[in-house]
Amino acid sequence: MNYKVIGKYVGHILLIESILMIPPLLISLAERQYRAVVGFLVAILASFVVAMLLRVLCKDTKKTFYAREGMICVGLCWIVLSLFGCLPFYISGEIPHFVDALFETVSGFTTTGASILPEVESLSNGILFWRSFTHWVGGMGVLVFLLAMAPGKERGSGFTMHLLRAESPGPDVGKLVPHIKETAKILYILYIVLTIMNILFLLFGGMPLFDAICTAFGTAGTGGFGIRNDSIAGYSPYLQNVCTVFMLLFGVNFSCYYLLLLRNVKSVFKDEELRLYVGIVAGSILLVAWNIKDMYATMGETVRHAAFQVASIVTTTGFATTDFDLWPSFSKAILLCLMIVGACAGSTGGGLKCGRLLLLFKSLRRNVHQVLQPHKVQVVRNNGRPVDEQVIANVNAYLAAYVLIGLVSFILISVDGLSVTTNVSAMLACFNNIGPGLEAVGPVCNYSVYGVFSKLVLIVDMLAGRLEIFPILALCTRSGWKRR
Amino acid sequence: MNYKVIGKYVGHILLIESILMIPPLLISLAERQYRAVVGFLVAILASFVVAMLLRVLCKDTKKTFYAREGMICVGLCWIVLSLFGCLPFYISGEIPHFVDALFETVSGFTTTGASILPEVESLSNGILFWRSFTHWVGGMGVLVFLLAMAPGKERGSGFTMHLLRAESPGPDVGKLVPHIKETAKILYILYIVLTIMNILFLLFGGMPLFDAICTAFGTAGTGGFGIRNDSIAGYSPYLQNVCTVFMLLFGVNFSCYYLLLLRNVKSVFKDEELRLYVGIVAGSILLVAWNIKDMYATMGETVRHAAFQVASIVTTTGFATTDFDLWPSFSKAILLCLMIVGACAGSTGGGLKCGRLLLLFKSLRRNVHQVLQPHKVQVVRNNGRPVDEQVIANVNAYLAAYVLIGLVSFILISVDGLSVTTNVSAMLACFNNIGPGLEAVGPVCNYSVYGVFSKLVLIVDMLAGRLEIFPILALCTRSGWKRR
Repeated sequence: MNYKVIGKYVGHILLIESILMIPPLLISLAERQYRAVVGFLVAILASFVVAMLLRVLCKDTKKTFYAREGMICVGLCWIVLSLFGCLPFYISGEIPHFVDALFETVSGFTTTGASILPEVESLSNGILFWRSFTHWVGGMGVLVFLLAMAPGKERGSGFTMHLLRAESPGPDVGKLVPHIKETAKILYILYIVLTIMNILFLLFGGMPLFDAICTAFGTAGTGGFGIRNDSIAGYSPYLQNVCTVFMLLFGVNFSCYYLLLLRNVKSVFKDEELRLYVGIVAGSILLVAWNIKDMYATMGETVRHAAFQVASIVTTTGFATTDFDLWPSFSKAILLCLMIVGACAGSTGGGLKCGRLLLLFKSLRRNVHQVLQPHKVQVVRNNGRPVDEQVIANVNAYLAAYVLIGLVSFILISVDGLSVTTNVSAMLACFNNIGPGLEAVGPVCNYSVYGVFSKLVLIVDMLAGRLEIFPILALCTRSGWKRR
Repeated sequence: MNYKVIGKYVGHILLIESILMIPPLLISLAERQYRAVVGFLVAILASFVVAMLLRVLCKDTKKTFYAREGMICVGLCWIVLSLFGCLPFYISGEIPHFVDALFETVSGFTTTGASILPEVESLSNGILFWRSFTHWVGGMGVLVFLLAMAPGKERGSGFTMHLLRAESPGPDVGKLVPHIKETAKILYILYIVLTIMNILFLLFGGMPLFDAICTAFGTAGTGGFGIRNDSIAGYSPYLQNVCTVFMLLFGVNFSCYYLLLLRNVKSVFKDEELRLYVGIVAGSILLVAWNIKDMYATMGETVRHAAFQVASIVTTTGFATTDFDLWPSFSKAILLCLMIVGACAGSTGGGLKCGRLLLLFKSLRRNVHQVLQPHKVQVVRNNGRPVDEQVIANVNAYLAAYVLIGLVSFILISVDGLSVTTNVSAMLACFNNIGPGLEAVGPVCNYSVYGVFSKLVLIVDMLAGRLEIFPILALCTRSGWKRR
């Protein structure tokens, strides 16, 4: 294990974080919210000092780092990022308990959007901005950002490839272009352009600038923190529809946009994952709209609410325009299953991912055929190309880890005595980085109903969900830490 | 596809079924319950005639049958068995709707024990006996019975091995002895001896003979149909404890008993699956007893109820001595997870099985290590022996199929508008062959709350759970049916 390279990267991340906290600091200064100013100043100073210390201590001499270091590095970076990122909430006193502040920050960076705040409108603007900004930063991944920003040619590209792979969602992360630095840059440029388009569309509908920026951050990162107590319900139907469309857009694999830029429209339309995603979204909207048709006045309103909630859940954003906990069981069942399905691989969304589901289904089909006809060799194909057996093994292992962690967390958070539906949905909503669940953690409620122990369990779930489990498991194994 | 051999086996099964219906017919005759007598007579005649027809039509000439035929054969046999087995309920008028009668019969043969009857004490004794007898027949499997009874040396042993494999629970079914016929015989002898011991222990505690036989059938098959409205709650603590012990015994891999008979005690104690099973049971009893300690008068009563319910759920039997739907969430969460865990492979219990869970965990651990150290080749071991990679692939495919079928069934049965917890627990209770769930399908309630469509979905779930999914999937594939 090369501890120094890990320390170096953690230092880089902290330096970036201290810079990222400057905009909310300026907002707090401009609005003369001095307790928030103190919070940001202390957090910036603390992360800067630790970053500098790590930079001095961890001058790496040898350059042997592999998958192991990549995993551990990603896991540690996200934990450190959250520990320092929660300081403004805590020091400003706007979230008085440390575990609550940590929960809110992890929920932000992991783009979950689960909140412990009974109401958000009393928060100061700087804090609200930072809260939404964590979604945007966590959406594409801060290490991807680091790779995009890294000066000069990449060094130790095996390692950076592992970083990209460990932080990016999906069963099999590929490079768009041969250089990782360029890939990361393209991803971030697409991300920024889409976010700006989102802001412009919201401004066009009359949303105030501050609201538009924060809402776009929550949409782009598929996070779901709103800056109003009623999430998106108070905005006009046009603004709600803009959110629906952009949530769905941010749930698409970003490589599809890159292919569109290269005018390779055909392969985008033939992409099996995208087809599955579109099919699931369209089918769910139809079924839900049919199921809730008696609850709203007009057909238009019914479809708008159905589409918004389906988009919000399948992309794991978690915004709400209506209290879907009041919907009939059939719609709730669909939403719970969409929580597990999740968005496309290579998007900012969470969940199992459509691509992984597709591979699971195909490998299952292959297996059934193999049992029926043991002597026929069969290959799993995706978009016409054979899939590496290691990828299939990883996808299956992912499902096993997903089920095991899900069941254990469900039991652990049940100690607080809340209802079974609350606990199942809370576990699913945090593990899949969605945010709101059902009953006591429904869209008009919040996670303050849980005790400290359950909150810590859910924090681990959120991190495991965002980092796709393996980096968090790596942190828990002995061989992950062993010196070579 | 060799249709004739399948027809031949279906014919055999129907012949056996017509013979199995003679004891309940005699009970009905002795008790002068003539509507039931008519029901049994018609059912016996119908199955006998169809059996004879199939025997004439399906004289197999060529003997090429493989895994494919085994799968399809097992799936078909169980469906036919249930269709004819439900006739007595339906024709006697004691269960007036056909789908209800089918539900009850499938629930019986698959050893689920989910009932659509609001109360069972009004049923006639012959019908009650048949209802419990289906558990006993389904527990060890009727095809295993056929193999044990088959005259002479086995022919086409590849096929019979596939039959044994497709009907017996667990990730990897082995033969106890070189000959399949002998293996099946040993299994049934162990099964009969254990059942008789169970009956004797119950009689010793003062249970009437009829009750003892039916209860032992429900215990041995890990079924769970009781013959009293309050399941086992009305019997003495001694009788309840006897049930607890025997439920746990029937949840153990039967090969352990065979090893004990061979005085190979050491390998039984070292068996990893058995250790996991004992650990899960002991841990769950402790946690549940701690959680419910304020609900019962004495420590003894608390532990008795905790042990009974844990044993009943983990072995997927489904008897109850108390309404665990009133227990706190933590205990309910443990019970829900135990539903998924299930008993040992090679037992009469359902669920994922401890052995499969062990392999899932080990293959996950292997996978994590492989990601961390890509160049190190690692083998999954069970009880010290390396596990075949195909078995691991099958276990992973099993989990994928389990999750996909579970989610789809959950959505489908939600159309009836019952609560999320009801639907989740009903799906888990049927798919894992347990019986009672929570809320509207809790231990003091029943499945009559569901509509016809949902009942059909749950019937498929029960069959898929008992036959471990693949035979039912095979029935749904084109290649399963295609002529070669």
